[in-house]
Amino acid sequence: MASRALLVDVHTHLYLPRYASLLRQRTAVPLIKSRSDGDRLVILENEPSGGRPVGPQYWDRDQKLAFMDKHNIDISVVSTANPWLDFLSPSEATSMAQALNEDLDDYCATGPNLSLSGSATLKRLYGLGLLPLVPRVSTESVLDEIDRIAALPHLRGLIMGTRGLGKGLDDAELEPIWARVAEKRVVIFLHPHYGVGPGVWGEKDNGHVLPLALGFPFETTVATTRLILAGVFDRHPELKLLLAHSGGALPQLSSRLASCIVHDPVVASRLKHDARWYLGKLYFDAVAYGSEELDFVSSTVSRAVRYDTHSSESLVGSSHMMFGTDHPFFPPIDAEKGMEKWMSVVENLKAIDDVGSWSDAEKDGVKGSNALNLFGIQS
Amino acid sequence: MASRALLVDVHTHLYLPRYASLLRQRTAVPLIKSRSDGDRLVILENEPSGGRPVGPQYWDRDQKLAFMDKHNIDISVVSTANPWLDFLSPSEATSMAQALNEDLDDYCATGPNLSLSGSATLKRLYGLGLLPLVPRVSTESVLDEIDRIAALPHLRGLIMGTRGLGKGLDDAELEPIWARVAEKRVVIFLHPHYGVGPGVWGEKDNGHVLPLALGFPFETTVATTRLILAGVFDRHPELKLLLAHSGGALPQLSSRLASCIVHDPVVASRLKHDARWYLGKLYFDAVAYGSEELDFVSSTVSRAVRYDTHSSESLVGSSHMMFGTDHPFFPPIDAEKGMEKWMSVVENLKAIDDVGSWSDAEKDGVKGSNALNLFGIQS
Repeated sequence: MASRALLVDVHTHLYLPRYASLLRQRTAVPLIKSRSDGDRLVILENEPSGGRPVGPQYWDRDQKLAFMDKHNIDISVVSTANPWLDFLSPSEATSMAQALNEDLDDYCATGPNLSLSGSATLKRLYGLGLLPLVPRVSTESVLDEIDRIAALPHLRGLIMGTRGLGKGLDDAELEPIWARVAEKRVVIFLHPHYGVGPGVWGEKDNGHVLPLALGFPFETTVATTRLILAGVFDRHPELKLLLAHSGGALPQLSSRLASCIVHDPVVASRLKHDARWYLGKLYFDAVAYGSEELDFVSSTVSRAVRYDTHSSESLVGSSHMMFGTDHPFFPPIDAEKGMEKWMSVVENLKAIDDVGSWSDAEKDGVKGSNALNLFGIQS
Repeated sequence: MASRALLVDVHTHLYLPRYASLLRQRTAVPLIKSRSDGDRLVILENEPSGGRPVGPQYWDRDQKLAFMDKHNIDISVVSTANPWLDFLSPSEATSMAQALNEDLDDYCATGPNLSLSGSATLKRLYGLGLLPLVPRVSTESVLDEIDRIAALPHLRGLIMGTRGLGKGLDDAELEPIWARVAEKRVVIFLHPHYGVGPGVWGEKDNGHVLPLALGFPFETTVATTRLILAGVFDRHPELKLLLAHSGGALPQLSSRLASCIVHDPVVASRLKHDARWYLGKLYFDAVAYGSEELDFVSSTVSRAVRYDTHSSESLVGSSHMMFGTDHPFFPPIDAEKGMEKWMSVVENLKAIDDVGSWSDAEKDGVKGSNALNLFGIQS
């Protein structure tokens, strides 16, 4: 292991050139539009402001590395940003997944090594692959892609949205997929895209704030809860699921969820454990922008063991949490700030440093070693 | 004041006989259906299990008092359960609001006094009234009803859903209503009903769990965030808003909300304060079923003052929180348990007792005196 604590970013996105080129060829959402004032990325219908400015920060590896250097990030575990392959046909999704996974392995492999005294075997970039999860795809082709991801040396997991094969992640058709992912010890990074549908945000123009600040976390919360209710963690206790944005609202709603389950005849006796037990099985990025939030999430992980009548083990909640930036999103809004560190990154690091109940060793864990452990990155 | 700490329930519902009778006459949702196996309350389209069993626990004051006695609850601040008057025409809503508010004042007035040594002037029941908030209602009739509520001696506030006049609570048409409510110092209890729309819960039968455990808190979170983004608390700093279910997911998403606001050109400079500041203006019931949740919510209230550059005051987060039961919902699921205390109540009390960072005085505050202060209930 390295002699100093490393800073590892587990939530950092890219659009590989092959993917950006696919988006440029499209005429329906998602797409990249050329405009006289710069290209725009439009990933949702009726997107505010005609989409987001998009440029080389989405695909240029040198820009990713410059961002990492600016913020002293040693290693990034990069993943394709939403909406992944959701909009493709089964055959397109299958071939695109394979090609993008190979591209991503290459992106990492041909990138720089981490310079550490006594060690030169770590890379600065690792990747999370994609599965061709679209309606009517053959299970076999998804299983094959899991095997390929597990075999590609610089991929350490996969990023997944919440639609599954079109019916969400509690679809029984996904059962062999969970089994294979667990068997191959491939970490799943669960990430939102769709929010919770139209009609909830009202008529006032609030930019992207409501779908991004609330819709995204709600979607992750719903998807994870549906996984719990479907018994996926009961049947696949080895599944490693990392939740984007610190699990959204799941920690704060977990005791309510437990109470609603116990009081509902339809589900009361379906699960092996109290709902709160499952939070101890989950991993959370530390992308919550506040130390009280991080402290709280770790406390809901720690308490999970209380709901296991067969165990007297303890669980260090922070060991399930890990630093992330959400790069290249949340850039400095003011162009003048272009030379400084990004506020979104500074805030997330400060949030970790300010958690009063975490020891220095725990903070180092959240900043780096927890991610190295989860993703099996070691020299 | 009473010589012993009182237990006050701020989240406890009823359907007054006039309201239950209205629901029985209806043929569309919401309605009460007579079935051979007992009456069912159906308040949402496509409700699981054909609705909930409904009976005198919804309208019989003796049952409310028996529930209070069983759990040593001294005072209940009762409110009509959702969906209130949302489904009525403007004229029906206006006359029904007035009649129900008078009924509720009478329900409280003719109920028992609280027996305390040295004091006999407190009642055991206080009420939260209703406004005729429906599309196309005249603002004047809503303002009149606020005045009537403020004048009825046993009503200490009002319960409100999230639809407003049909466009949500960030509708500019509501401006005079917020002004009047603030002027009359009428507390608003904000309560969900609609969740976040269909299509998010999937095809699997999970009973009421997803809409109740997640949809309800999401709705409250969205409504409160939209109020914040509309500047309502900037213009009406005296507004007293009590959020159901401990504010849903708002506390956990508040730093993310702050970051999304700062990074969105549409709203970045709209508000007077950081999003987290507004949580210090809000009140939260303690209906979260877990001590970690309560501790966390109070920490997000306490930290609000950090975001006020003009103040060096401190804020005791727990002083904005107060016990609730959600009676008559969450009844014991097993008929055999009918003789025992309700688990949902026991859990919420234990959650308060187990918050390690709260002093005994703070716990007493959450159990009773904070509510007495907020609602102006004093002998």
